[in-house]
Amino acid sequence: KFSFCPVCGGPADQRVPDGEHEPRSVCTLCGFVHYQNPKMVVGCVVEHDRKILLCRRSIEPCYGLWTLPAGYMELGESAAEGAVRETQEEAHAQVEPVSLFAHLDIPLIGQSYVIFRAKFAHGVQYSPGPESLECALIEMDEIPFDKIAFSTISVALKLYIQDYKAGRFRVHSGVIDKRPGASPSDPQGFVLRDYLSS
Amino acid sequence: KFSFCPVCGGPADQRVPDGEHEPRSVCTLCGFVHYQNPKMVVGCVVEHDRKILLCRRSIEPCYGLWTLPAGYMELGESAAEGAVRETQEEAHAQVEPVSLFAHLDIPLIGQSYVIFRAKFAHGVQYSPGPESLECALIEMDEIPFDKIAFSTISVALKLYIQDYKAGRFRVHSGVIDKRPGASPSDPQGFVLRDYLSS
Repeated sequence: KFSFCPVCGGPADQRVPDGEHEPRSVCTLCGFVHYQNPKMVVGCVVEHDRKILLCRRSIEPCYGLWTLPAGYMELGESAAEGAVRETQEEAHAQVEPVSLFAHLDIPLIGQSYVIFRAKFAHGVQYSPGPESLECALIEMDEIPFDKIAFSTISVALKLYIQDYKAGRFRVHSGVIDKRPGASPSDPQGFVLRDYLSS
Repeated sequence: KFSFCPVCGGPADQRVPDGEHEPRSVCTLCGFVHYQNPKMVVGCVVEHDRKILLCRRSIEPCYGLWTLPAGYMELGESAAEGAVRETQEEAHAQVEPVSLFAHLDIPLIGQSYVIFRAKFAHGVQYSPGPESLECALIEMDEIPFDKIAFSTISVALKLYIQDYKAGRFRVHSGVIDKRPGASPSDPQGFVLRDYLSS
């Protein structure tokens, strides 16, 4: 809940603007309505020869755990461009998107993960960026599911392996409800609901 | 570009925070970093018997033009829940999501459309909500493409009809580049690039 207007610095009230349903932070001086909306986290499942590119995090949260290259989508880029950028930043890998793969919402923290399947664009090259301790191509059957950083990443990896083994990639969507207070990587700390696939 | 901190009301500077790449609005007093990210617009293609549920807008922009029920995703809901809510609000229709259908980014205005296929949940009932002049189930071959409100909606409808006629629904993603200054409904005012399908 924001207390001040970012445009004029005036005091802001929480109220429902005319014609709307939800309370917003509204400036008492200039009337600016400060909308807050969910944020997209964009990332890639980069596969090469039954192996998936994973990064071990060098930052909190989940220092030392494995994740897919992913991060917040920026203004001015597309979801696919953001996913490619994050893969470059976190794994120094140049990749090309193949298809949308999963849309996973986490309403409790206002995040939506948009994950693409991708492939190496110019040969199999990668090395850890500043947010990674190490990067590795890991065999699907050897992915350390007890050391995965985030519930969304764990869900996405399991769906990917399932599709790979079925010989057909689908596009998946669903909602992750976390138990409040559960660690982001706790496999018992979340459930996947409202799952749909193409 | 925001000039004040929404948390403490202090003056904000545009600068690149440590460890980041993009300039952000950073408070000179309390250090709060005010991230601005793309917003998701969530909506539904509700089909019934070769007809698609469209709403004619009673508000600007694009007053009087036809659109799919869609609007900004709110904090605390999933994309599918937001799409269902918008369909209830704009068309008073109770629908059930079937599958993710399209993810379309518009980087120029920082929006990403996340569109689901949906069906009526409890019989074919609809009527205009406050943001609609009228709602109608329109035969696919009779959709007024010269009177569609937004480029994303036009693209989504064309992809839907194409999939319907091919007898198989895919999931689509792409980027809409608008010519700066073009009207949102100008069919010559945009191009679809980086198109991918499942």
